[in-house]
Amino acid sequence: MASKQWLVEDYEAGDLPLTSGETLHSARLRYHRIGELNAPKDNLIMLPTYYGGAAAGNHPWVEGNSPLDPDRYCIVIPALLGAGESSSPSNTAGAQRGPGFPAVSLNDNVMLQKRLVEDIFGDARIALVMGWSMGGMQALQWGCLFPTQVRAVLATCCTARCYPHNRVFLEGVKAALTCDHAFENGRYRSPPERGLRAFGRVYAGWAYSQAFFRHELWREQGFGSIEELLRFWEQDHLGQDANDLLTVLNTWQNGDISDNPVFGMDYEAALSAIAMPTRMMPCTTDLYFTEEDASEDGRRMPGATVESLESDWGHVAGGAGREAASHNRILAAARALLSGKAS
Amino acid sequence: MASKQWLVEDYEAGDLPLTSGETLHSARLRYHRIGELNAPKDNLIMLPTYYGGAAAGNHPWVEGNSPLDPDRYCIVIPALLGAGESSSPSNTAGAQRGPGFPAVSLNDNVMLQKRLVEDIFGDARIALVMGWSMGGMQALQWGCLFPTQVRAVLATCCTARCYPHNRVFLEGVKAALTCDHAFENGRYRSPPERGLRAFGRVYAGWAYSQAFFRHELWREQGFGSIEELLRFWEQDHLGQDANDLLTVLNTWQNGDISDNPVFGMDYEAALSAIAMPTRMMPCTTDLYFTEEDASEDGRRMPGATVESLESDWGHVAGGAGREAASHNRILAAARALLSGKAS
Repeated sequence: MASKQWLVEDYEAGDLPLTSGETLHSARLRYHRIGELNAPKDNLIMLPTYYGGAAAGNHPWVEGNSPLDPDRYCIVIPALLGAGESSSPSNTAGAQRGPGFPAVSLNDNVMLQKRLVEDIFGDARIALVMGWSMGGMQALQWGCLFPTQVRAVLATCCTARCYPHNRVFLEGVKAALTCDHAFENGRYRSPPERGLRAFGRVYAGWAYSQAFFRHELWREQGFGSIEELLRFWEQDHLGQDANDLLTVLNTWQNGDISDNPVFGMDYEAALSAIAMPTRMMPCTTDLYFTEEDASEDGRRMPGATVESLESDWGHVAGGAGREAASHNRILAAARALLSGKAS
Repeated sequence: MASKQWLVEDYEAGDLPLTSGETLHSARLRYHRIGELNAPKDNLIMLPTYYGGAAAGNHPWVEGNSPLDPDRYCIVIPALLGAGESSSPSNTAGAQRGPGFPAVSLNDNVMLQKRLVEDIFGDARIALVMGWSMGGMQALQWGCLFPTQVRAVLATCCTARCYPHNRVFLEGVKAALTCDHAFENGRYRSPPERGLRAFGRVYAGWAYSQAFFRHELWREQGFGSIEELLRFWEQDHLGQDANDLLTVLNTWQNGDISDNPVFGMDYEAALSAIAMPTRMMPCTTDLYFTEEDASEDGRRMPGATVESLESDWGHVAGGAGREAASHNRILAAARALLSGKAS
């Protein structure tokens, strides 16, 4: 694997019709790729990205002794629309720049990824689609939209739609960000720094769990105090664009795998279509993609087993390379799914 | 009871030395009172107030067929320092107005209440001190500081100190409020409305539980949508003063029943002093005063039994008149404590 390198590529999709009826002009999908498509075209692995994360954030799932082996698989990480790498408010020219960027849905993201697979990867079969958080929502969207193309799904710390309390949590971080006068309804000339800092501070309370703070697990991340952790969250969000954050937040809040022409908001039908081997891996202490919601979704997918991550790391447990124990359990599940032993 | 009325009174305490070393000038303690002190001076009930609440917020515990019977007990509701009724940034003249208001601690609040009891109620014995949230923290502070004077304690949805995640949650709402440029470091001339709205919206996600939103229990509060509920929270906070909110938030964040000259931060010693009949009533779904933290505190108080409120209402379950089932269980516990059957 050491011989292989990640390639950063852009897929230019032209004008992309959106679920909303609008069109995203000159849509671009940024993706990272490692490994080669084989002759039977059945070794593609898709790792869609999570909220606030760049494509490189999923690299840890492929590093080391991972079943996601670039010598064997062609691994693609497609970056979310709006998140700053693919077409986004911050990198779009003209009328769709900044607050003019159209609303993009979970379905829009996955339909664009499907076009990437068709055009660049010969409409290959997907050995595994795997994601954390919003990445997991996209994985589930892939599973129900393209059940014959997707052989297995692994979704950590996510649900198949944004449940109500999750929406309320997101209303809170949105309010904290847009409260900054410098935000100017998205027409800021310099970043709304106070709002970005507040966004990061509010978010930090939700990202982990009560037990994470109780047991001072932030020390394992190298922080000397909770205040240091909170400042890291501020800094991390100062590096992000406010309109980008709100665009993807909107995708998340409205996320529902049945909200598209195929399922027409029939949530049961969408869940029922996930009949391939699927692993739902919620974390027992996740405060917004709760174990209860994810487990209920999983029970309604014919192909799914629910395997909870017993962890104090809350939502963060399911991310690539975040908590060693959960990371290893997730990779073990991926190994089972890829070997066909997890149906 | 219909013949009795609540009286609103002010106790002028003069200059009040604070834990911080500062002095609160011309300290005033606003309190509500109903019922009369009896001759043996052993029928006083104290109901300290909660964050964001006025003294009247505890009236529902006394209404109807309550064991807190004004025909039998003299019931006093002392309002928190800083919360807008007792001495607060918003109602203080001179240098201590607004951002000049000194930090006040849990201990300061209870020491002032103790002076009220001494001066106005002949240092009566306290049949019960009972509170929700920060009101419960004050009840526990009373219990350990004055164990021979307090006969029973009832504390709902609270802990004996502010645990780390709870502090982080509060950092979030504080960041949302102070992010508003109009806040001007507390020197605002008109209210920082955006910040107050953001504060309310962020807070709403924490006040209930995931299950509260999942099961649409906001309908029981008369709201037609989650957005209506969030707007109510915005409006409620628009009615509050930003410096007041931050003063009491600071009291809460630093709240620790052992943080005073009596216990000198010896938390075990403070918990051990709560040997009178005590009921800790955390809610199973409380997101910040968690059942785990409250139960552990309770187990370390020799007089306490822990009786969890099984409820989807989260933190709100423990408030007076909020959720009928929990309200009734809390009053049943109060009845047992007052009758001496709960030791």
